[in-house]
Amino acid sequence: MYIIIIGCDRIGAHIANRLSESEELHNVVVVDNDEASFENLSPEFGGFRILGDAGEVDILKQAGIEKADAVFVATGKDNLNLMIAQVAGNIFDVPCVVAKLFDPERKEIFSSFGIKTISTTKIAVEEFVKEIKSRRERKQ
Amino acid sequence: MYIIIIGCDRIGAHIANRLSESEELHNVVVVDNDEASFENLSPEFGGFRILGDAGEVDILKQAGIEKADAVFVATGKDNLNLMIAQVAGNIFDVPCVVAKLFDPERKEIFSSFGIKTISTTKIAVEEFVKEIKSRRERKQ
Repeated sequence: MYIIIIGCDRIGAHIANRLSESEELHNVVVVDNDEASFENLSPEFGGFRILGDAGEVDILKQAGIEKADAVFVATGKDNLNLMIAQVAGNIFDVPCVVAKLFDPERKEIFSSFGIKTISTTKIAVEEFVKEIKSRRERKQ
Repeated sequence: MYIIIIGCDRIGAHIANRLSESEELHNVVVVDNDEASFENLSPEFGGFRILGDAGEVDILKQAGIEKADAVFVATGKDNLNLMIAQVAGNIFDVPCVVAKLFDPERKEIFSSFGIKTISTTKIAVEEFVKEIKSRRERKQ
């Protein structure tokens, strides 16, 4: 599969490393406008790096968006993520588009555009609440 | 339940808001050494704010750690989180201690100290990989 990761901060880099190390031989391309962010990639990362602003369609094309099977959008900005995810899904018909979301309240906006989101904030909250509940049940 | 949240960045604040709004009437205390971080709390947040460095035992005591049922440690620094979580669990016998972890590779270190961790990076990676797989299966 041909997979593009937009944003090479900790999460983007971790996904890129993991997919690039996978036995399934994915082609992985990472895009970021800050060259230093590529240092988050592991030395074994076998994919491509594109330096540029993924808010520009030319950069997305350079990353090969026209043939991408999946795009993970994880810049630090929710609004930029929404915009890029829409371009990927609606203009370039990428079948699998997932955006990272800081603000869980925006999930519905993304959903209304058919974009699947991952909110790490929401997940962390749920995990902690689950843990509290399970401790309390054990106590009772 | 008496719950302390250490670190009031987006995740800490979100957990604090959610617990404070819950019908179960938890007592929630938030600790952060940056007053501006409290702005992440919702206007409805009904808990307490403690301004100070949670790396100091006095601040933890001021937050009521001696009677805490659960502590969520989410400063931006993994090592500080480890230290505070250990103090909470081992010195103050808090029954439920969960630490947020940036670097999933450190999970084992935390586990060896009996600290449960939530790695948002790891969760995001797993969610995306799951999504890719489910799309591929539907395609086949």
